[in-house]
Order: sequence, then C-alpha cells, then structure tokens
Amino acid sequence: MVYTDRLAIDSTRLSQRLAVLARIGQLPAGGVRRISYTPEDLQARQQVRQWMEEAGMSIRIDAAGNLIGTYPGQRSDAPALSTGSHIDTVPSGGRYDGALGVLAGIEVVCTLNEHQIRLNHPIEVIVFTDEEGGMIGSKAMSGRTQPDPEVYRRQEGRSIQECLSLIGGNWDQIATAQRTRQGMAAFVELHVEQGGILEATQTQVGVVQGIVSMNRFTLTVLGRNNHAGTTPMSMRRDALVAAAAVILAVNRLALNTPGDQVATVGYVDVYPNAPNIVPGRVELSLDIRDLSQDHVDHLESTLQIEIEQIAQRTHTKIVSTPGLRVEPTLAEPQIQAEIDQVCEQLHLSHRRMPSRAGHDAQEIGRFTDMGMIFVPSLAGVSHAEDEFTSPEQCAYGTNVLLQTFLRLDQKYA
Amino acid sequence: MVYTDRLAIDSTRLSQRLAVLARIGQLPAGGVRRISYTPEDLQARQQVRQWMEEAGMSIRIDAAGNLIGTYPGQRSDAPALSTGSHIDTVPSGGRYDGALGVLAGIEVVCTLNEHQIRLNHPIEVIVFTDEEGGMIGSKAMSGRTQPDPEVYRRQEGRSIQECLSLIGGNWDQIATAQRTRQGMAAFVELHVEQGGILEATQTQVGVVQGIVSMNRFTLTVLGRNNHAGTTPMSMRRDALVAAAAVILAVNRLALNTPGDQVATVGYVDVYPNAPNIVPGRVELSLDIRDLSQDHVDHLESTLQIEIEQIAQRTHTKIVSTPGLRVEPTLAEPQIQAEIDQVCEQLHLSHRRMPSRAGHDAQEIGRFTDMGMIFVPSLAGVSHAEDEFTSPEQCAYGTNVLLQTFLRLDQKYA
Repeated sequence: MVYTDRLAIDSTRLSQRLAVLARIGQLPAGGVRRISYTPEDLQARQQVRQWMEEAGMSIRIDAAGNLIGTYPGQRSDAPALSTGSHIDTVPSGGRYDGALGVLAGIEVVCTLNEHQIRLNHPIEVIVFTDEEGGMIGSKAMSGRTQPDPEVYRRQEGRSIQECLSLIGGNWDQIATAQRTRQGMAAFVELHVEQGGILEATQTQVGVVQGIVSMNRFTLTVLGRNNHAGTTPMSMRRDALVAAAAVILAVNRLALNTPGDQVATVGYVDVYPNAPNIVPGRVELSLDIRDLSQDHVDHLESTLQIEIEQIAQRTHTKIVSTPGLRVEPTLAEPQIQAEIDQVCEQLHLSHRRMPSRAGHDAQEIGRFTDMGMIFVPSLAGVSHAEDEFTSPEQCAYGTNVLLQTFLRLDQKYA
Repeated sequence: MVYTDRLAIDSTRLSQRLAVLARIGQLPAGGVRRISYTPEDLQARQQVRQWMEEAGMSIRIDAAGNLIGTYPGQRSDAPALSTGSHIDTVPSGGRYDGALGVLAGIEVVCTLNEHQIRLNHPIEVIVFTDEEGGMIGSKAMSGRTQPDPEVYRRQEGRSIQECLSLIGGNWDQIATAQRTRQGMAAFVELHVEQGGILEATQTQVGVVQGIVSMNRFTLTVLGRNNHAGTTPMSMRRDALVAAAAVILAVNRLALNTPGDQVATVGYVDVYPNAPNIVPGRVELSLDIRDLSQDHVDHLESTLQIEIEQIAQRTHTKIVSTPGLRVEPTLAEPQIQAEIDQVCEQLHLSHRRMPSRAGHDAQEIGRFTDMGMIFVPSLAGVSHAEDEFTSPEQCAYGTNVLLQTFLRLDQKYA
C-alpha cells in the first residue's frame, strides 16, 4: 500500500466540524458547556452519529452508552483497530479537549472512504460516555465500573440508570459493554496536550509513553486552637505552621527527586480560620502523579518520614487518609515506535512524554495495546475558554493518526 | 491607715455574685451569651447597678452608655481612682472575662463601705459598654470613637443610636463621655489572664506591663492556577507554596527574634482550592503583637525583606495590605510597683507580663495612669465555656485590687 504514504485528511472539513461541534453548548464568553447526559450532550451525539454514518460507518451504542461507529475491514474475522475520545466537557471547557480525538477518528475514516480504501481490520471510532465525570464509558469497556449504581448518581440527583437510558445505554446490562483484546487489537487516541511541554520545547507531536498514576491523600493536621494574642510562641501547637512545612516538603521532594513526578497540595481547609486565632486543625489534599507506581510509592514513603518529623517538631498530629488511586497505564512500545516513524515520515518534530492528565485511553490500555498522540495546547491552557490548538496542528495530528492506523493494519494479525 | 493592711474582701459574696451574673445569658453547655445591647446585657446591667447602689455608690450613665458607680471620697475636689471592666461577652463566652473586674470593683467598695472607710479620693467602678464588640465605651472616654455612626452599626442591623439609647446613652452627646486625668487620677483593672503563662510558671498574680500593640495585614499571593497533572514542577507559579514559605517565615521570625512578640497567620483562603489544581491565589492574615511599637516595626520590615525573597524564588507576587493597627499602651511604672508591693505584703507570687489581649484599660491608659492585675486562667482557656479561675484566685486578685487602691489613695494628690 505504498500509495497511502501520501494520503492526507481534509483539514478544512475537520476545522469546520470542530467549529460546528463547538457551537453546541457554546457559552457567551466562548467556552463550551456540554456536560454528559444534558440536552447539549445528546445533540452533539446526534451530530457526531450523522457524520459517522456519512463516512460509511455502521453505528451501535453499547450498554454504557458508548457511541461506536465501525468502518468495515476486508477481513471479516479481524479484531478492530480503534480510536476515539469524548465530546462531553467540564462545566466551562474548551473546543478541543476530547472533541478533536472523536472528529479526527471520523476524518480518518472519511478519508479512507473517499479513496475507497478498506484496511484489513475494521476501524472503530468511539465516543466514550462521560469522560469528564468519571469515565464510566471506558471503564465499562475495561470491566472496571463499580457495582453500586449510587456511585454514579449525578450531582443534580439523576440516577445512572436514567442517564444511560437517555443516551441509549442500559445500566442493568453494563457488563455486556466489556471488551477484550480479541475484539479490539489496538486503540490509539489523539488528544490535545493540556500542558505546556510541547509548546515550550517547540515540538509538534507528543508520543505518549503512558498515562501517569494518580494517588490522592487527605492529610489532617491536628494542633490546638488558641488566642493569637495571649498564647506565647513557645506554647503553641499551630496546625497551620505544621501544614505549611508539609506543603514545602511536598514541593521540595517533587522538585528535587530525579524523575518526572508532580506533587501538588491544591486544597487547604483551616479551622477556625480567623486572624486572631492560632489554627487548631488544617486539612490538606495531596496529589502525586508519575508513570511508575513504584516511584510514587517511594515518594510516598519518603514523604511519610518527613511528615512524622514535622508532626514531632510542631507538637501536632498528622493523619494521612488515602483517597482516589489510579494505576498507571503504559502505552504499547510498538505503537510508540510506529508513531515515531510516522512523525519522521511526515517531517514532524516529536518527543516521548507521559500524559499527566487522565484519558479514556488509560482504561482501554488495561485490556489491549494502547497509544496516544498529543498535539500542542496554546500556553498549556485546557478546561477553559481559551483552550486553543491551531487548525494546522489539528490537521497534522489527524494525519499522524491516519498513518499510524495504516501501519498498525500491517502489524496486527 | 495601718489597720487597712488586714482589710479583706468577702470571697463568698464575690463567688455568689459571679454565679448570679453567670446565670444571666447562661447557655445549656455552661457558657455565657451576653452580647451588648441584648436583653441579657440589659438585665445584667440592672443587677450590677443594684449591687452598686447597695454598696453605697451613686450611679450615672454617660453618653456612651458606660455605667459608672461612684463611692464618695473624703476630699470633694479629688479626682477619682477608678476600676471596672465589662459584663458583655462573646457569643459563647465564659463566666470570668470582664465580669470578675466589675464585681471585684464592687466588692472592694462593699468592703470599704462595711468598714465605714472612706478614702481621700472617690472610687469609681465602671461597666464599660461593648468591650467585646469594639470598646465603644472606653474609646468614648479616651475621645477616640469614630465620627461615622455607621461604623458601629450592629451585625443584626440595629443602629448605634438605637443601641446606646437602650442602655441610657446618647450617640449625639458621645463627646461628653470623654474623660481626662483631672477627673480620673488612675485606673486599675483586674482581669483573668486569658493565657497560660501564670499557670505554666505557677505564679499567682500577673503585674501587667502594658497592653501590646496589634498590627494586622492581609497578604495576597498571586501565582497562576494550572492543572496539577500536566504542569511540570519547574513551570509552576504555585501561590500556596509561596504562602507556606511566608507562614514558616513569620513563625520563625517570631520564635527566634529576642523578645516577647507573637506573630500569627490564622486565616488562609486558597483559590481555586481544588485537589487537582495548582493554586493561583492565596490570601493570608498576619497578626503581630508586642509591647513596643518600634519592635513591631522592626519585625515588619525584616519580614518584608523575606517576603520579597520568597516572591522572587517562587515566581509569585505578594501584596501586603495594612489592616487594623492598635498602638500599645504601657502601664504606669508606679502602679506596677505598688501592685508588686501589695503582692509581697499578701505573700502572693507575682511576675511582670504584657497583656497580649485587648482590654478597656488600653483606652483608659491613653489619658491617665493605668495598671492591670491578672489572675490565672485554667489551661489558658478563655472566650469559651470552660474558662475557669478558682474562687480563691478571684478572691486574692480582688484583695490585691483593694490594697492597691489603699496605696494609690496615698500616692495621688
């Protein structure tokens, strides 16, 4: 299939469709509000479904509400090569996060269809359900949803049963959404970086090595609240002073330990939080991310020793409560290598990098070979109205996806 | 008047009256809620007024609503020797803060009256208006009230005009409440320590050197909020990391600088305050107190240099906004010396100490000679239901007040 080397997607159509999708749920300030299961989400799904059908795909919706378009392959027995992302957004999101991955997948199929090319494998383009709200769609595919439906009740009160039925899913049958390697040989997701590394290093494409683990903790510092005037410095058990030492220890550890880890204290709650009272209790969040779970475990245990020293020094007690824990998912080395080669072929600068944000690919990568392609985000901004990736960047990213599929079609049985 | 060396107050009556007063506004959990201008405050004023009259005092209420009982002296032209405190409380206060000073003053007069002793000077016992809510009573005496009545509007909406008229005051005449040294030769206030120094050092009496200055600031740290996953450590401008460094710098400076200063960060507001977002803005309160304004100024300028270094190091901007500023009031050395001598005479252990909480004495000390006597607070607790000073401690404190008045009566013209 040498002739496919020069195959290229239609960047005008891609841009137009990005603009059409961005108008569904558009906010006055320019951002997009398209929360899962809302009328805007349903309207966007309807639009995307129409584009899938126009591209020659057959459509099904699984029990988790995932919208799956299939472009048939030449071999009837072959597992799918899959791509996709999400079209739901955070309450005030941007135009590219998720949307680009879905529309790029459709654009790849449109291009193949217009050139009357069928690969050996069928191609699937998947719109995953509710990525921003907990990834129930991709988790159902990896068989990792929670059994208790109450876990998925929406903040406004609607049950997950009601929500899934709105989009054509069925909570009672959610186990049937589970997929395996036998039905999906590989999954490649194109996404905007949502960070500033590609821009800062003037690199066109990020070849994702994996999606980092995330470990959350709540730290509760217990001191004694007291009068800020009458309590001498030496008699204080100031929970905020201890908390400040913890915040600096977390930052120092993440900065100075060799590696690419990040660690953040983003949330602080001080009690009683009055200028004239020595704080008696402080709650902190702690969020540590890295590609290697072993490395995170090592950082955690180093930090724990420091925290105990801080508690002793400040005459406080510091209690650590584990929270959300997401294990890392590594991208398949072979897929990373193919994406590298496609970038060389297309004369695009590229670098290996971890994804430090969560994506549907992290769930799909738990049961089949996974890869991700990043294109730059202007100033690293995401989940905001000024999220921006240029039409050229969207187009070359989609061409990388197309060429990667052409190569994977040859690699997989 | 050698015979007065053995004069002693009636500790049973004092304890009984403390208990009677504590029942006005008593909370189910044992604390006291007697906020100024409420029915409980009015009822307590009525009770105190009755005790004053029984002790042979004439009563007047000045324009600021201060309730002033006068026990006449032998010399009609002599200025008053004054004492007193307040009977209003914080929303959930204790039984001793303020109340002890008022009832001790009445007890001193009762004792003199029962022994048919008249001093050269008249004795005044003053119930100051609204100590806990801004000290309008003692500020009116020092001529330092604000001209704008809106400053004094109550949180529930009542005007200061309405409030003062309820207790017999008159906002329009408030300037007439101002006092001078010509009418009040000296003022001595007995108060519970509201701190833990006397207890920790096993000292019976605190001889107050002065009431510390208080300097409040708001520090605003401006960084950049960003995704806690996708923003590498080296690209962050984390406002909370900068704030933590400031909190530790404040604490270190107050601990390590020679002197008795205290400095506190008691209030923190983090934006956007989410576990997965690098904080972009943090507001902190800063409260510095010391007997010497020069020393506070020195601490402030040292801190300012450190804050600038922290801002540079963390790539943030830190803006300092001055807030409440109360100048220190020193106790008259002669009065401190007399209290020392009374303690020796009564075989009470005693130590000089600053008052790090505000008191009406700080306003009165701005126009006449002032002294304060502290008795211990159990575990340093105050403004809470478990505030406790034993009957014996209340009694010996009141005897110190009595003997101090006997001495001052000889010292002042």
